[in-house]
Amino acid sequence: MIEKATVVGMGMMGASFALALKKAGLVHSVCGVDVQSACLDTALQRGIIDRGSRSLATGIEAAELVVLATPVCAVMQLLPELAALHYSGMVIDLGSTKQKICEIAGGFPDLPFVGCHPMAGCEIAGIDGANGALFNGAPVIITPNTATDRQLLCRVRKLWEGLESRITIMDAEEHDFAVAIISHLPYLAAVMTMNTAAELAQHNPDIFRLIAGGFRDTTRVSEGDPVMWRDICLTNRTHILTVIAKYRTLLDNLEHTLETADACQLQEIFLTSQRHRRKYISLK
Amino acid sequence: MIEKATVVGMGMMGASFALALKKAGLVHSVCGVDVQSACLDTALQRGIIDRGSRSLATGIEAAELVVLATPVCAVMQLLPELAALHYSGMVIDLGSTKQKICEIAGGFPDLPFVGCHPMAGCEIAGIDGANGALFNGAPVIITPNTATDRQLLCRVRKLWEGLESRITIMDAEEHDFAVAIISHLPYLAAVMTMNTAAELAQHNPDIFRLIAGGFRDTTRVSEGDPVMWRDICLTNRTHILTVIAKYRTLLDNLEHTLETADACQLQEIFLTSQRHRRKYISLK
Repeated sequence: MIEKATVVGMGMMGASFALALKKAGLVHSVCGVDVQSACLDTALQRGIIDRGSRSLATGIEAAELVVLATPVCAVMQLLPELAALHYSGMVIDLGSTKQKICEIAGGFPDLPFVGCHPMAGCEIAGIDGANGALFNGAPVIITPNTATDRQLLCRVRKLWEGLESRITIMDAEEHDFAVAIISHLPYLAAVMTMNTAAELAQHNPDIFRLIAGGFRDTTRVSEGDPVMWRDICLTNRTHILTVIAKYRTLLDNLEHTLETADACQLQEIFLTSQRHRRKYISLK
Repeated sequence: MIEKATVVGMGMMGASFALALKKAGLVHSVCGVDVQSACLDTALQRGIIDRGSRSLATGIEAAELVVLATPVCAVMQLLPELAALHYSGMVIDLGSTKQKICEIAGGFPDLPFVGCHPMAGCEIAGIDGANGALFNGAPVIITPNTATDRQLLCRVRKLWEGLESRITIMDAEEHDFAVAIISHLPYLAAVMTMNTAAELAQHNPDIFRLIAGGFRDTTRVSEGDPVMWRDICLTNRTHILTVIAKYRTLLDNLEHTLETADACQLQEIFLTSQRHRRKYISLK
């Protein structure tokens, strides 16, 4: 049982994590830190946190666990601040890219940090998207490096096990390439689909009254937090550009196949995606 | 109450329509027509149809309603066959593109045909995807032309109202452009996302064990029937190519923004998609 945990960032992820800790009975009290006092007030009212603070220094006092649940670039700024405060408890983050964060954390060997990335989320940005069951059964990637203390890593594992997450240990760079493929690409495709549709329908937006589940599902994630996604793109540019380059070759190929009305090739492309999805989507 | 309806094509759409007709009590008996007797056997066993026939001529005998529920190119072949059989009841189709189908139907002025497109579906191709509630509350686009008999159109409307669908009347060409944007684009984006991910992960398919709801939802429709989608692309090529050209300009822009690490512009692109989706997705 952790006596006091501090969650920095009262957005969808931070609030979900605070709720999850309480629900699992892993923590006695949770302090929320956010620059916006309105977020803290809402979190307090909803019983997501027990105490709020706009100051990092005050918020982390006597906390055994600090969870950085902000967008990635803010995590990168918070790590040196925690080090300057000589924080010595356990620190994890929930950021969607890990290489830059772990590089910075590596510069503070006395900070007991382990990078984490729960593969779970919700398109409803902010505290309204909070869900205490978010991590239950969800894959969580932990990205220690060779310098990470084994006991610390063990405690971080136990924490996620307590939330019933499915843990994978991975190198930070390997992680960033993997998520460029399985998370950042789907988001960017959703954004482009949504924006293309909106631009083409600008003189006739009534066509959106006709959408079915396909449009709804395919664009769902495009409603995610723009700042979070900006930071993801800025800190995983190289891998994302590699993935987009491959996507472009497939787009070129599809366009050519349509231009030449190549029925066999069209069917082959669609059969391939059908087979891939059936094969890969149910892997556990 | 229709005494006998015949549904041609016992795939996901045809079987769903047969079930929906029965569920709504709109029909006394349903005959299924399919080239594969295995589909007919399954449909009979599951009570989806009351009788099956591999012959169109036999299947439509004494039917007051014929529903063409095959992929689009098969609908285009069935229309002249129905005309040659001097079928005089009511004919509708459920195809996803309407211009080519309605052009062909226009060549048979004695065939009492009205094109329909229910905006509903399921990624589970075939009879296993059948769902009698599929059309309940779903948008249905009806595409009559100037020659369509008003009484016939009225009967078709009533039929869909009986299934509690939300009806929109639209010109066939206008329909095809609209669905290129809100249905065919999301499908093609899903296909390219799935195929890009599978190609990039071919030496490390274990990364698919880490997928979250985002990848799952964004690629869901890529599991759809390859033949159905081939026919959609072949019969709506021009509009789809227009939509893809716009998509490409957005992809170019996104790639450039990533290459130059333009934080403001990235955030702007993501904010735009968030705003568009919030605005358009809930239109009724």
